[in-house]
Amino acid sequence: MEKQQVLINGERLKNTLEKFADFGRTKKNGVTRLALSEEDRQARDYYCTCCKELGMSIEIDDMGNIYATLEGKEDHPPIVIGSHLDSVKKGGRFDGVLGVVAGLEVARTLVENKISPRVPLTIANITNEEGARFEPSMMASGVLSRKFDKATMLQKKDVDGITFEEALHSIGYAGKENARLKEASAFLELHIEQGPILEREELSIGIVECVLGMVCYEIEINGESDHAGTTPMDMRKDALFAANNIISIAREKLSVLDPQLVFTMGRMNVYPNVHTVIPNKVVFTLEARHKNPIVMKQVEEIIQGFTQIPDHEGCTIQVQKQWDRQTVWFDENIVQKLEQSAQTLGYPYKKMDSGAGHDAQFLASYIPTAMVFAKSINGKSHCEEELTTWEDCEKGVNVLLETVLSY
Amino acid sequence: MEKQQVLINGERLKNTLEKFADFGRTKKNGVTRLALSEEDRQARDYYCTCCKELGMSIEIDDMGNIYATLEGKEDHPPIVIGSHLDSVKKGGRFDGVLGVVAGLEVARTLVENKISPRVPLTIANITNEEGARFEPSMMASGVLSRKFDKATMLQKKDVDGITFEEALHSIGYAGKENARLKEASAFLELHIEQGPILEREELSIGIVECVLGMVCYEIEINGESDHAGTTPMDMRKDALFAANNIISIAREKLSVLDPQLVFTMGRMNVYPNVHTVIPNKVVFTLEARHKNPIVMKQVEEIIQGFTQIPDHEGCTIQVQKQWDRQTVWFDENIVQKLEQSAQTLGYPYKKMDSGAGHDAQFLASYIPTAMVFAKSINGKSHCEEELTTWEDCEKGVNVLLETVLSY
Repeated sequence: MEKQQVLINGERLKNTLEKFADFGRTKKNGVTRLALSEEDRQARDYYCTCCKELGMSIEIDDMGNIYATLEGKEDHPPIVIGSHLDSVKKGGRFDGVLGVVAGLEVARTLVENKISPRVPLTIANITNEEGARFEPSMMASGVLSRKFDKATMLQKKDVDGITFEEALHSIGYAGKENARLKEASAFLELHIEQGPILEREELSIGIVECVLGMVCYEIEINGESDHAGTTPMDMRKDALFAANNIISIAREKLSVLDPQLVFTMGRMNVYPNVHTVIPNKVVFTLEARHKNPIVMKQVEEIIQGFTQIPDHEGCTIQVQKQWDRQTVWFDENIVQKLEQSAQTLGYPYKKMDSGAGHDAQFLASYIPTAMVFAKSINGKSHCEEELTTWEDCEKGVNVLLETVLSY
Repeated sequence: MEKQQVLINGERLKNTLEKFADFGRTKKNGVTRLALSEEDRQARDYYCTCCKELGMSIEIDDMGNIYATLEGKEDHPPIVIGSHLDSVKKGGRFDGVLGVVAGLEVARTLVENKISPRVPLTIANITNEEGARFEPSMMASGVLSRKFDKATMLQKKDVDGITFEEALHSIGYAGKENARLKEASAFLELHIEQGPILEREELSIGIVECVLGMVCYEIEINGESDHAGTTPMDMRKDALFAANNIISIAREKLSVLDPQLVFTMGRMNVYPNVHTVIPNKVVFTLEARHKNPIVMKQVEEIIQGFTQIPDHEGCTIQVQKQWDRQTVWFDENIVQKLEQSAQTLGYPYKKMDSGAGHDAQFLASYIPTAMVFAKSINGKSHCEEELTTWEDCEKGVNVLLETVLSY
């Protein structure tokens, strides 16, 4: 007899996502739910209530991460489904919360169908992924994976001078270090794509193989801030002209490296920034991402080569690496399991990269990990227009459920 | 018998300039003496004291302009020597004050030599040339020449919300409208060049024929602020890339128009200005100056043509003229008299344009006017490094004295 296909309840998923969107919903139907804020506390409390109703046991660790566990038939390390409940300011209703509610919906489906999983199922809310209130982003997964120092993170302050530690205590989510996620059979994170690729290819689902390596440089050009009316063109040291040249050269050289390379000059400040004064200083960032370290090396050579360009309009140039990170490859077996699940469900999918950072990339350092993407409309995220259809949310969660069932 | 050459007292000029620099001297030997500030009041009071000591009569008009007059032998409209005592924040010890102290030194020399001029000599301090505390610049000369509306100007506020009118009363320099400078035989303004041309040509003195016409546009480019990591290059609408293209095109086209054209993109703001977000908006100014209206028309055609460029990286572009002004030509006879004076004194000089704005350009609308420039070291002004040698200051004032004596 053929196995009966168990699916999640799409209507319940939708209602739960909308319920969570009430915790910080903005006028334009987005969400502001900064980490450890009152809205975050409400969402966490509701999440715990829902998990307890399913008979799940709840643990809170010292970074405020919440783990709700459904016992398995055998004593294996759990399969973990998780993401984050915090949002950026005026963010969307899907980023993060989708991956947390996905876990809840998988658990609800199992309980409702009286399916006791072989391996325990833990659903996790990881604290402060966004870093919108307390920098850096992915703070708690960074501590779990020993990338960040806990003591340093606890002292990070928001704009009002409140420390992470104080905020954690004030919302009642300061737990115990020994509750931390130490080992797991798998970590599965469903997230919105935050990019336009799935939409362009008319696909609902992406199976993520890696998180792109990236590098960020700051380029500083110094010239002279002479009078815009009295200084002949050939006697100027115009830092904006020099920056204009560098950006043109950068675009020309980077754009032929590899079609998958992305690069952005996102921040640029001009000094003194007065219309009648020749700019004496321009500082801008150049950030690039690619999965192949050879391409990333070429990118860095191009950026470092800026200082060798003979003519900088009489200005001086400095390039300074701000930070970089290596490409994180997800676990091949988990990726394969997720693919099999999509195939079983009959969902066409794309194996793809993540250009954005996620908690999963840190957890991947000690847990077999992979991610599922759900299509973003217009590629938008971190804004109130962020949108993923209920249908695509449902498909994403079904892939997780199918994967859990396959264990 | 040959006429005895009367010259000013260079040592006294230097000491007087240093005395005025005490009113607001900065740690780095610059000056902060914002219009109608306590430092401005002190400088004005000292100026009036010096003028009274020479037996000059003093009048204050309704914009706070100070006129000190040495009677002439005949009842003609006066020759006026003047400039401004106010400075920008952390400005120099020469900009403006040189032209006011020049008048004082000319009067002192006449009195000391018991020379009673044929035509009355008025020495003037014009209020708020810089516009550094109350915008716009050249405020009082603008009101005198009916370019600006007095009532509007009186209500202009500084950053603390204090109006120009309140400040004028609080320092005790609100005078009477009928004291305004109504007619004059000449207006002569000695000023530092604020540019590097005289230094390049190894000349101490410039005789200024005109103040350049200028135009200022604001260019706004709107794109989309997508995620820097997840958006393929060919799906971006990067406003900074579009701005970079426009700036390159502008530089290419403007740089071949005329070698004397100067143009500057002095102000540029990038939004949201976050290194991981593709810029969705860039706004920058493009300001250009040239004396020939035909060249200025070509400049405007090039700027307006930006909207016709077919490819803006998927962004939209708007160009908006902020303001313009026509070239102001100084009085030919006065220019000639100044030239004759320089020749008489044996000073090599250059007939030149002023790229910067000065009160003289407004007064030129109803008074025969011209200016003398003294060489700026490194072309610097509006900064603490601003410098003109005492010798060149002295030469500039001697040109004014010689011109007064020639009447």
